[in-house]
Amino acid sequence: MSVNRRIVLVERPTGAYAPENLRVEEVDCPPPGPGEILVRILYCSLAPMQRQRMSDVPSYVRPFNLGEVIASDVVGRVEASNSPMLSPGNLVIGRLGWQDFAVCDASSVEKIDDDDPVLWLGMLGSPGLTAYMALIGLGHPAPAETVVVTSAAGAVGSYACQLASLCGARVVGIVGTNSKLETARSYGCSAVVSYKDPNFGVQLANAVPGGIDVVFDLVGGTTADTAFSQLARGARVVLCGRLASNNSTNPSEDFVNLRSIWLKEATLTAFSLYSHKERFSETRQKLLALYQSGLIQPSENVIQGLENIPRAFSQFLEGHYSGRVVVKV
Amino acid sequence: MSVNRRIVLVERPTGAYAPENLRVEEVDCPPPGPGEILVRILYCSLAPMQRQRMSDVPSYVRPFNLGEVIASDVVGRVEASNSPMLSPGNLVIGRLGWQDFAVCDASSVEKIDDDDPVLWLGMLGSPGLTAYMALIGLGHPAPAETVVVTSAAGAVGSYACQLASLCGARVVGIVGTNSKLETARSYGCSAVVSYKDPNFGVQLANAVPGGIDVVFDLVGGTTADTAFSQLARGARVVLCGRLASNNSTNPSEDFVNLRSIWLKEATLTAFSLYSHKERFSETRQKLLALYQSGLIQPSENVIQGLENIPRAFSQFLEGHYSGRVVVKV
Repeated sequence: MSVNRRIVLVERPTGAYAPENLRVEEVDCPPPGPGEILVRILYCSLAPMQRQRMSDVPSYVRPFNLGEVIASDVVGRVEASNSPMLSPGNLVIGRLGWQDFAVCDASSVEKIDDDDPVLWLGMLGSPGLTAYMALIGLGHPAPAETVVVTSAAGAVGSYACQLASLCGARVVGIVGTNSKLETARSYGCSAVVSYKDPNFGVQLANAVPGGIDVVFDLVGGTTADTAFSQLARGARVVLCGRLASNNSTNPSEDFVNLRSIWLKEATLTAFSLYSHKERFSETRQKLLALYQSGLIQPSENVIQGLENIPRAFSQFLEGHYSGRVVVKV
Repeated sequence: MSVNRRIVLVERPTGAYAPENLRVEEVDCPPPGPGEILVRILYCSLAPMQRQRMSDVPSYVRPFNLGEVIASDVVGRVEASNSPMLSPGNLVIGRLGWQDFAVCDASSVEKIDDDDPVLWLGMLGSPGLTAYMALIGLGHPAPAETVVVTSAAGAVGSYACQLASLCGARVVGIVGTNSKLETARSYGCSAVVSYKDPNFGVQLANAVPGGIDVVFDLVGGTTADTAFSQLARGARVVLCGRLASNNSTNPSEDFVNLRSIWLKEATLTAFSLYSHKERFSETRQKLLALYQSGLIQPSENVIQGLENIPRAFSQFLEGHYSGRVVVKV
């Protein structure tokens, strides 16, 4: 029987997350039952959703229970299988959490190719899928239009910027730290501004002289509000995340001024990835084709060690990392 | 030469409108020039847009200048014409303002039938057109769905409620005064709540047990925010007006919580009537067909006397009237 290190929630953050909210514990991993597999987890990922689920607030996924393993997309290798669907050695993706091993139903994971497992947690995982489906399907960026991406150097934003640029749009990125100004440019932004800059509003206005046609918003709050004040007529706003409120003392509050939405006859649409599973496969093929043609670049950054997650997650939420943060277990 | 009574803006309201912001003045009406007509105005209307334009804030129509006649949709009769397009005696509609007479280019008005002139300021005018095009075209109400109309007893709301009901939806109205609870029911609401009730939030929640599929919002602010907290998944929100901020000290502020829009994967779309002029004619035909079949009823209320407008407009903004308020000049 394998010893399983797993990271569980021990207390809910009040306001900002702290590493003490989590604990690394060691438990025996049970053998797989009928129809189940034992997976050794190779890579997992850090995502804003994990912070959100640590709070006991209404969301479209339930909050974590105290003592529960933090859920995360992972890539793992099958070590034992009681299912004809999978064999030992197969590489799989699934939502198996921050731990060394997981026992799960064989049908709850998806077999993937061995080529580049990390890509399945970023470009071909939630970030790439969200960027493609929400930006292209709801934002409709067009040549000569201006697209603003909030959290432009982040996991989803990095792909949204690249895709908007491929659509012929002029891309303006919003980031939170000066070190990401250049990173966002590398993803295709022709201008980047920091929402922490005291002149953020003026800088953004100067960067979008003809107004904003598409806001791809992952942040909400005052960052979104500032972008909304610069909308062009008929603008499309896509809400894909609410990073600003996730880590606040009141994650249910995300107030913005609708005045500009109304004046500019804009449309605002919310996107939730897991309501669109039926399109994952076709979207992955499109992303892969763009990657193989050299038209989009991966944004995954790999950090080392499951045991480092509680501290790394704090830095992640504070904006220390760019792109998709993947942990090599 | 006729003496023209006209109502002009003499000072901008700070916060609530007061009758003293306007003045009735008498001036000579000049004869029509080449291509122009002289129109005797028979009916004009009161609308929230007039209050909005009294403030010097960005909007999709410019603010009134001090000393300018308050613009209003009117029905009038041609008294003199220097255009082959129109003859004396013709009935016309146009945006000729709160006054007895207007001289205008013949092409700036539209000839209408003599049957029921008041209908052209309500059901077949801006209120009916807005209700039809915004509710049907953007809200897509469907049988067994729940539609919430804010300002349900107002000019636009009265038609939105009737049309939503015709679509087979269950209609819940929000009004501002208890006297309008019954009025809104007469427009097809199966439940009506007042946003001024201390238990408004609970009452609305109780009235929409399965959540709200369509919000037809004319009010904004906390009223809209309360409705947004009860959205069903995939809800459509249509913004057609911002009554709450129009008459406030800061008409540019219309803050609402986007959290629920995001969680419920809702869509929010703003509608401005005069961006859709090309569809006025076909939409009027549909409204007229419904009216002639007895499927929708007029909501126009006629009050008497141009000179009474400054005071009546104050009562109008305070919610004393229901339906479309038309003034017999």
